[in-house]
Amino acid sequence: MGDLTLAQLGELEILRRLQPFCAEAVGDDAIVQDLPIGKSLVVTTDVLVEGIHFSEQTVSAEDLGWRCAAANLSDLAAMGAMPLGITVAASLPPSTPWSWLEGVYRGLRACLERYGGQIWGGDLSRAPSAQFAITALGAVATDQALYRHRAQADQVIVVTGVHGAARAGLALLLQEKALTDFPHSQARAEQWILAHRRPQPRFDAIATLKRLTPEFGQIAAMDSSDGLANAVLQICDRSGVGAELNRAWLPIPAGLADWVGLDLATQWTLYGGEDFELVFCLPWPLAQALVKALGSPCQIIGKTTLAPEVKLVDSTELDLGSNPQILTLRDSYQHFGHT
Amino acid sequence: MGDLTLAQLGELEILRRLQPFCAEAVGDDAIVQDLPIGKSLVVTTDVLVEGIHFSEQTVSAEDLGWRCAAANLSDLAAMGAMPLGITVAASLPPSTPWSWLEGVYRGLRACLERYGGQIWGGDLSRAPSAQFAITALGAVATDQALYRHRAQADQVIVVTGVHGAARAGLALLLQEKALTDFPHSQARAEQWILAHRRPQPRFDAIATLKRLTPEFGQIAAMDSSDGLANAVLQICDRSGVGAELNRAWLPIPAGLADWVGLDLATQWTLYGGEDFELVFCLPWPLAQALVKALGSPCQIIGKTTLAPEVKLVDSTELDLGSNPQILTLRDSYQHFGHT
Repeated sequence: MGDLTLAQLGELEILRRLQPFCAEAVGDDAIVQDLPIGKSLVVTTDVLVEGIHFSEQTVSAEDLGWRCAAANLSDLAAMGAMPLGITVAASLPPSTPWSWLEGVYRGLRACLERYGGQIWGGDLSRAPSAQFAITALGAVATDQALYRHRAQADQVIVVTGVHGAARAGLALLLQEKALTDFPHSQARAEQWILAHRRPQPRFDAIATLKRLTPEFGQIAAMDSSDGLANAVLQICDRSGVGAELNRAWLPIPAGLADWVGLDLATQWTLYGGEDFELVFCLPWPLAQALVKALGSPCQIIGKTTLAPEVKLVDSTELDLGSNPQILTLRDSYQHFGHT
Repeated sequence: MGDLTLAQLGELEILRRLQPFCAEAVGDDAIVQDLPIGKSLVVTTDVLVEGIHFSEQTVSAEDLGWRCAAANLSDLAAMGAMPLGITVAASLPPSTPWSWLEGVYRGLRACLERYGGQIWGGDLSRAPSAQFAITALGAVATDQALYRHRAQADQVIVVTGVHGAARAGLALLLQEKALTDFPHSQARAEQWILAHRRPQPRFDAIATLKRLTPEFGQIAAMDSSDGLANAVLQICDRSGVGAELNRAWLPIPAGLADWVGLDLATQWTLYGGEDFELVFCLPWPLAQALVKALGSPCQIIGKTTLAPEVKLVDSTELDLGSNPQILTLRDSYQHFGHT
């Protein structure tokens, strides 16, 4: 029997086939779950739309499922929370093959098996184009959640991972640049493509930080899903501080500038987005301890300041930068452009 | 200044304008909330897609917001839970006027102000057509959740409200039938249209049942969002029982048969959907007490049986029906048709 479409299967049969991917308790109007004692609930929602956030050209069904889960789990990690479950609102054209939807659920489950959490049901609807709205629920020990507004002046800004690799992987997949000009090995190309297809929420960094400090609950954090610059700007805006980022310390993926030039590499590192890494503002000793404990790539990229601007400075001495480039939220990625 | 589109405003400005509709704590990667002590978490997700679940022809922006919230809150009510908050994943074309999105949020907020809960943030994305994926979170006293699988044979099936009114309202809005043939007052037309536009989750029935019985946590319940027949069939399927519904006791809206004929009125009552009422299976004395306490319209429509079929019988004596019509889940509303 060939691959049937959702229209051929009908809703009842689709739901029956999705049941094995879901927590046992799924099947009522809602799911009932107990929260671990002493924990607060953490809730986040992210939508991935076909043609905007993904296309068949760039991700397989399983990659898409993984990315949908990872994008939401990364938000939980940024709050210092551990995942409990997700709900999946899938809107799909009736012509969608069952094997594709099953692939998405396999990817969702693979990501949850890696990082924790179950599929707690959701909703399935016919729609003109495919999209997945995921809500992830997590738990954090009460008073141990991380917020954006906690940064103070003269803290050190630390980021996990390199930034711009997911953007580079997308460029490779979309063949934005002639691949004949690609100066690196196939392995490096695959590494960047994997950064786009299989982002890894940084629960490891959260676990390490918890181990390193008794004052975990005081840390300012955010994930870099909308770009590194955006994360720094949001933290600064909420905290009423500014920042100086050292251009030489930006976490540009090794070899990226050789391929696209330093200007575009810097652009992708600051604004590329979808790296799903974490940005922290920490006291200097804790920042050093985190970098040491996590190992490369995790690096200090600058410091917070009393002055409210977020500046990109060129000197290795952060205070000596002249004519710094000022970053603003308007420059960072926006779903709805402005005129 | 005229009405700006989302593209003209840009994402930052849209989020700034939506902030007043949201709980104060919104603005991080996720929202952190404490669950009331002794309560379990209840989670449900529902999507409304333009052209499938709503159109500009049938609902205003505010009605749409109300319906989005009510559809999800009705699922919480069916579980015996009270609402805490919702997340809103809005996917919208860039040409969407701001005033329309603001209207949707006004409707969402109006429904939550009426029934409880706050807007706990969400996500905003560009998309080819409009849709809203809402996740509602609620709380229920531990071990007091209502489930579909709890029905036992020889219980009484009770439904709140009339069924088919929302479908009749939709028919009026879509002018499926010539309005010149409408045999009733404008007030009745408006009542049915309101049933479609402003469904009311039946938290009142839940509160009444809680007051009437110490064994609240043993009740089988489901909301009738996908139709009355679907709700009875799902409860029976999960509980391993059947049912006999008395055709004469179906909660057909008064006057509906005069307009569309008894056959179509029966069809809409059983399969119309989106009435967002509740279906319970109860011991006989509790069923009577509920009907008395809630007042009309709340009525007994039949009983559960050991035999697994769900039958529509014609006799007022439930056991005497001959050649009964057998209902199946395949007849009830499906988002993806089957071949």
